Amino acid sequence: MYMDFEHHRKLSKQEKTKMVLLVMDGLGGTGGQDDSRSELEAAHTPNLDNLAAGGICGLHEPVSPGTTPGSGPSHLSLFGYDPLEYSVGRGVLSALGIGFDLQPGDVAARGNFCTIDENGTVEDRRAGRISTEKNEELCEILSQIELPGAQVIVRTVKEHRFLFVLRGENLAGDIEDTDPQETGLAPHPARPMAPESAAAAKLVGEFVRQAREKLSGHHPANMVLMRGFSRRPDWPSFTTVHGVRAAAVAAYPMYKGVAKLVGMQPLDTEAGANAEVSTLAKHWNDHDFFFVHVKGTDSAGEDGDRDRKIRVIEEVDRFIPHIRELGPDVFVVTGDHSTPAALKAHSWHPVPVVLWARHCRPDRVQSFGERDCLQGALGPRFPAHQLMPVVMANAQRRAKFGA
Amino acid sequence: MYMDFEHHRKLSKQEKTKMVLLVMDGLGGTGGQDDSRSELEAAHTPNLDNLAAGGICGLHEPVSPGTTPGSGPSHLSLFGYDPLEYSVGRGVLSALGIGFDLQPGDVAARGNFCTIDENGTVEDRRAGRISTEKNEELCEILSQIELPGAQVIVRTVKEHRFLFVLRGENLAGDIEDTDPQETGLAPHPARPMAPESAAAAKLVGEFVRQAREKLSGHHPANMVLMRGFSRRPDWPSFTTVHGVRAAAVAAYPMYKGVAKLVGMQPLDTEAGANAEVSTLAKHWNDHDFFFVHVKGTDSAGEDGDRDRKIRVIEEVDRFIPHIRELGPDVFVVTGDHSTPAALKAHSWHPVPVVLWARHCRPDRVQSFGERDCLQGALGPRFPAHQLMPVVMANAQRRAKFGA
Repeated sequence: MYMDFEHHRKLSKQEKTKMVLLVMDGLGGTGGQDDSRSELEAAHTPNLDNLAAGGICGLHEPVSPGTTPGSGPSHLSLFGYDPLEYSVGRGVLSALGIGFDLQPGDVAARGNFCTIDENGTVEDRRAGRISTEKNEELCEILSQIELPGAQVIVRTVKEHRFLFVLRGENLAGDIEDTDPQETGLAPHPARPMAPESAAAAKLVGEFVRQAREKLSGHHPANMVLMRGFSRRPDWPSFTTVHGVRAAAVAAYPMYKGVAKLVGMQPLDTEAGANAEVSTLAKHWNDHDFFFVHVKGTDSAGEDGDRDRKIRVIEEVDRFIPHIRELGPDVFVVTGDHSTPAALKAHSWHPVPVVLWARHCRPDRVQSFGERDCLQGALGPRFPAHQLMPVVMANAQRRAKFGA
Repeated sequence: MYMDFEHHRKLSKQEKTKMVLLVMDGLGGTGGQDDSRSELEAAHTPNLDNLAAGGICGLHEPVSPGTTPGSGPSHLSLFGYDPLEYSVGRGVLSALGIGFDLQPGDVAARGNFCTIDENGTVEDRRAGRISTEKNEELCEILSQIELPGAQVIVRTVKEHRFLFVLRGENLAGDIEDTDPQETGLAPHPARPMAPESAAAAKLVGEFVRQAREKLSGHHPANMVLMRGFSRRPDWPSFTTVHGVRAAAVAAYPMYKGVAKLVGMQPLDTEAGANAEVSTLAKHWNDHDFFFVHVKGTDSAGEDGDRDRKIRVIEEVDRFIPHIRELGPDVFVVTGDHSTPAALKAHSWHPVPVVLWARHCRPDRVQSFGERDCLQGALGPRFPAHQLMPVVMANAQRRAKFGA
């Protein structure tokens, strides 16, 4: 399982080179109603085009052909972790998503407030999507639950969703979902799926019992369902594998969290290209590798707002020269997945990528767009987790393999 | 081994979308004597070109780079089963090829009538390629063989080839070939390769002993050789993995059989594009996924008849609008492998594919031909078994992976 990273770690060598990985979330797109060009193709991006002309282009697939990724797996893949091998539980992703500082050993789960009838059968898995304010009130109540030998932490996520964390000694997370996934059934008991999870499963069972009591007067949110029990994974860190000091310039908790998960140092920053490029410049001397995350492209795509997505891309384009002025040895611009405005959602479409570096052997792509990238040196559909070794190679941070 | 299918099954979701996979058998080709264009490139195909212009193109490799596939593996790969992992024994393929309805638990083998001399040494592995009529006569004789606790079924395939099936309780198929693969040697005994195959191997040995007795007066066909003992595999079905009602419009037993093997429902149809498109239309409302198989391209290629292969392609092209009128949400046209008329045989050349769908993000390919497809979004050499997840994604039948 860790063989690839062992391979990369052995080859890694120290150089004074600097790398920037600029991720425009959901960058990949499709045509609109009256325009067959993608958002990126339609955007006026002279600086990205210039980067493409001097660099190598292609399209990556974050998880596997035909798979629409969530933000967690898609970023892990860009960081070099094959998301089919390095999977993160939903509990851990929930914690990352709200910036909760999960400790090693914590067991996390994604919780839903739900509605049950007098027989205990689930009537509504989302409790009519209660307000976030009501959620906060209920989390306050659930936080009062006491369990023998373990601490319970309950945090509001949004609407009916909350984060559940069990903190104690020797707790393991192989526990079956209590969420039956459909209405008309009773919640499942929290069954351990491995002997070492028996203690944690028993505590979860007790939590659920008390939660039901405490919520009984709060119809429609009179019960909880939980799924994706998991612990923070203990993976080889990005910094160790590649021998780099890595930092994350990301304003949103999820992306900061995923970066922290692989050992990057999150830097305090406001959102938006302007603020993030300032943060990058401020910390330029302190790190070798910078992951810079721009959220606006994805939000616009999710909203189905093609014009706004184009404007965000054009705004980022204007900051490209500022980043180049800092003098990165390798500069990659890509997305973590596609979010076509036409679909108002993440999608399976491959994602354009441009990699500029002094010794990169440019292809003939002159413009940064999905269809131009098809003809690029990185190929039309390469696994995203293969990108990072190419970045390190272009930073001349990899030794020769074999004599 | 089954992880990928488990991955696909978990992601599959219900939609009311319909898909057509039209396979022109042996579609891929090469240039002819006075024409460097492949058969597909030389054919006049305005409708396929139109599909290419609005869709995404590429070339697939059915098994692995440089591998020439048989019909079984190449179709399995198109259906999403990596044929290096999901291998079907020759016995099972023989049964599929003649439309024999193999039951779970049956042990099948491919048989040859052969010639042995008075010492029992093989002189001719094919018994001088006896006629199919003679084969039928001999199969009649062999069918009279009785074995303790198991039924023997012997069916004519063609010339010297027959199908052997052992039907009984608790029979396993790990049995060594009795065919020594060269002349001058005696047939091998039927050795079990696993303890649980001992009973079946003993029965095969007894069958061979009796067959030799019964055939002694039928020189040159005075003995049998058997290979590829195997049982019908128990794989995750296509329908379960992808959550679709799938049907096969295929006139020939082999293709019907492979489709049935993965759980598709074969529909009664005559051969030829006209009849098959009528069958498709007739059953349009009953299924979500349709595999349509056209044999004529391969037969013409095998015969070395370039002009006929071109004509078959052109005939299929005329039916493309009829299929589009049915309103498929995803429409794929490809071959299962290449059968260049210049080679008169299956070949290793990658196979052109076009995928049209509403949200597919068209590439710049304007014409459906091998060299044009090289520039397409699916890439110039992708594993055929990766196609099906992309089809399902384009049918919007896959959920997001990870949060």
